[in-house]
Amino acid sequence: MSYSSTVQELIDQLGRLPGIGPKSAQRIAFHLLKVPTDDALRLARAIVEAKEKVSFCPRCFNLAEGGGECAICADPRRETRLVCVVEDSQDIVAVERTGEFRGRYHVLQGAFSPIDGVGVDQLRIKELLTRVADEDVEEVIVATNPNLEGEATAALLVRYLKPLGVRVTRIASGLPVGGDLEYADELTLGRALEGRHELGT
Amino acid sequence: MSYSSTVQELIDQLGRLPGIGPKSAQRIAFHLLKVPTDDALRLARAIVEAKEKVSFCPRCFNLAEGGGECAICADPRRETRLVCVVEDSQDIVAVERTGEFRGRYHVLQGAFSPIDGVGVDQLRIKELLTRVADEDVEEVIVATNPNLEGEATAALLVRYLKPLGVRVTRIASGLPVGGDLEYADELTLGRALEGRHELGT
Repeated sequence: MSYSSTVQELIDQLGRLPGIGPKSAQRIAFHLLKVPTDDALRLARAIVEAKEKVSFCPRCFNLAEGGGECAICADPRRETRLVCVVEDSQDIVAVERTGEFRGRYHVLQGAFSPIDGVGVDQLRIKELLTRVADEDVEEVIVATNPNLEGEATAALLVRYLKPLGVRVTRIASGLPVGGDLEYADELTLGRALEGRHELGT
Repeated sequence: MSYSSTVQELIDQLGRLPGIGPKSAQRIAFHLLKVPTDDALRLARAIVEAKEKVSFCPRCFNLAEGGGECAICADPRRETRLVCVVEDSQDIVAVERTGEFRGRYHVLQGAFSPIDGVGVDQLRIKELLTRVADEDVEEVIVATNPNLEGEATAALLVRYLKPLGVRVTRIASGLPVGGDLEYADELTLGRALEGRHELGT
């Protein structure tokens, strides 16, 4: 027995989601077939609504609703001279949770990774350069992920931003708070040493 | 920043799927927001179609389309005196792949687990007993999973089926083919020893 085309289509579509392998796709498909119709349709509706209502902020490319600017760009209390560059909208949520940042954001919508087909043109770099020139930005904090792609993106941004005379900074890498030296990998510990700062000053 | 209600609803609905934690739900939601609308809507459509078209076979509770019997029950070449009892429809696919079974199936739609609210009445046991009585079944092969719930279900089925005078068998547990004694857990190895059979006869 193989699955009917309807079931196979559902499994295929679920399998295209990130992090969902063929086995999970199958399990989720059967779950959806088994739950009450209303529950399954609620998910279908949520997808349709999200695609209808949610757009990207024309300034920073964060998520926005109704086609206008996002809540952060529209907030006049946010510092405009400070821009934090992140890879994705969900990174904004993480930075906002710290309560440490009162500037604005710029979402690149990815990280530089030519092998995956993400080059300079796929990222919102041109738009960032325009903002820096137009909006009197003083400092760009590069908060891309501290992995291969994120670091390559950071290096790229420095090359583009420096000529504009703006200050470019990078978030610190090091041991996580509550972490343990013994279990830290050598790269992280190396970065922690490199980024050491003086105490008692 | 927290998510807008539309985005949060999408994350919530995704998070209700089995095996999808809050982080995965968030990642999938952002993936859906980023991909072309057509790609996202294809998933929504697949869900709606599956719920519209797919039903359960009135005889064995396998998946079926169009409200009738499933492809296996409708196939006159399948042996009717042999019924293989499984927990879910996807288990049928696994058994069919072996090419070793020419009988019919009965899908319990779960395994006995009172702690999760799955008692005798939540499983298709009553329907199995009716089939055994009505369809002249000679042997019921219990192919529930060899875990706690599956074994409890098997024990339960024996209790209900034996009085009907039908032969009840259980699939063998033991080392997987290509497996390694050294890495086998003690329960599996214990089962393998228990289920040993004579060679050279």
